[in-house]
Amino acid sequence: MKNDYVHGYSNEEATRLHDQAKTLSDLLHNNIKFPAGSRVLEAGCGVGAQTILLAKNSPDAQIISIDLFEESLNQARSLIKKEGIKNVEFVKADIMDLPFEKESFDHIFVCFVLEHTLDPIQTLKKLNKVLKPGGTITVIEGDHGSCYFHPESEQALKTWKYLIKAQKDLGGDPLLGRKLYPILSEAGFEDIVVTPLVVYVDNSQPHMGEGFIKKTIIAMVEGLKNQAIDSGIIKKREWDQGMEDLHKSAEKDGTFFYNFFKAVARK
Amino acid sequence: MKNDYVHGYSNEEATRLHDQAKTLSDLLHNNIKFPAGSRVLEAGCGVGAQTILLAKNSPDAQIISIDLFEESLNQARSLIKKEGIKNVEFVKADIMDLPFEKESFDHIFVCFVLEHTLDPIQTLKKLNKVLKPGGTITVIEGDHGSCYFHPESEQALKTWKYLIKAQKDLGGDPLLGRKLYPILSEAGFEDIVVTPLVVYVDNSQPHMGEGFIKKTIIAMVEGLKNQAIDSGIIKKREWDQGMEDLHKSAEKDGTFFYNFFKAVARK
Repeated sequence: MKNDYVHGYSNEEATRLHDQAKTLSDLLHNNIKFPAGSRVLEAGCGVGAQTILLAKNSPDAQIISIDLFEESLNQARSLIKKEGIKNVEFVKADIMDLPFEKESFDHIFVCFVLEHTLDPIQTLKKLNKVLKPGGTITVIEGDHGSCYFHPESEQALKTWKYLIKAQKDLGGDPLLGRKLYPILSEAGFEDIVVTPLVVYVDNSQPHMGEGFIKKTIIAMVEGLKNQAIDSGIIKKREWDQGMEDLHKSAEKDGTFFYNFFKAVARK
Repeated sequence: MKNDYVHGYSNEEATRLHDQAKTLSDLLHNNIKFPAGSRVLEAGCGVGAQTILLAKNSPDAQIISIDLFEESLNQARSLIKKEGIKNVEFVKADIMDLPFEKESFDHIFVCFVLEHTLDPIQTLKKLNKVLKPGGTITVIEGDHGSCYFHPESEQALKTWKYLIKAQKDLGGDPLLGRKLYPILSEAGFEDIVVTPLVVYVDNSQPHMGEGFIKKTIIAMVEGLKNQAIDSGIIKKREWDQGMEDLHKSAEKDGTFFYNFFKAVARK
């Protein structure tokens, strides 16, 4: 995994990730329940935002959650402890150099991780090796090219495009969601089923305007402000106007659309 | 309605619209069933592509389908006759000058029409007048800004953007889908529920690559070829490359995403 991009690095970022997980948990974790006694690898657990949901939804599965960063693992550990969860073991490990035996997991779960890897297909091949034949992999990714909103302004689009560029510049793939089917196929998985998970928000669900658009999406863009302005790509005035316009999509006459993708495939 | 844009004008276009209706019918008409004895206005029936589905799904409702163009109505009439459908009456009428009594319909159905009107809110207000209090309106629209695909190329994006521009130049709104909630609200409707209807295609459903991406979406763009090249906005070579690239999204490693919106609201 690319070392200079770490979700959950700052406290603010950690708060954002927990808010995001809470608002989105129903959408993303719907139907994800692993059988009693199964051994599940969560590859790239970060600060534990998804771990907690995985563990609660599959209380009788044994979950092994890895991450490359001790700092993230410590946050994840204390979160799990606070919740009284007992079925998770944390291991500091590199997803590209897994310290597990071949074919030692019944299931694998990867959420918001591949989009930050330099080579998602190679990463999937590494994961394939530690999965038992017949076992499943569940992959959840966003696709920043799926996002649109009303009202739409040139400045708002520009801030959004900067988010896409920033992730690309770090070697990630902000448009990975749409590619899950071909990359899983290329990595040797079978029976691939990809489901779009749509977030559509209008004024009939004002809590989503707050919880999803503002706290998750706009917060993610806002975090790039200094970097964007320093880069010279966008002027401060344009950026501020863009952020103001993005906020309108979370208000009374606004609408907002984002699409996640969930793929389940078999080895 | 804008007079110089008519869906179903040529025979080829009529074929495209029927293919589209067939492939999409399950998605769009799911849960649309009007009660026995109810009087339903289909505002803007065109060549009858949706009329046939409406009539079949609500066999005991009385459907009054209007359109401004005699030529489209004649095609719709012969289609309905061929199918042996008896519960549809066609009326040549302007959606902005409806020849019906105030509050004379139980339900209204509008599909792929508002996106071509010059003033969707005024159009909805006109429709509101002929709807009984407590009656419902069902609106279905696309949103061309919701479309994305893999692989993505600059040329393919350019052809797609031309489609958006062409519809705008005719006074329509190619991004209307995302606006259904605010415009219905502005036109005085209540209890508005907007549902995104997602078309996602990958190689697990090759028939959708053929039926939806190629026959519906790409065909729609292809129809603009001469106009686009004559406009000078895009060179012939770029256009051809763009179309070739768009086709790749319907092939083995390609994926394609488009989002329709369905709104149901009450007077």
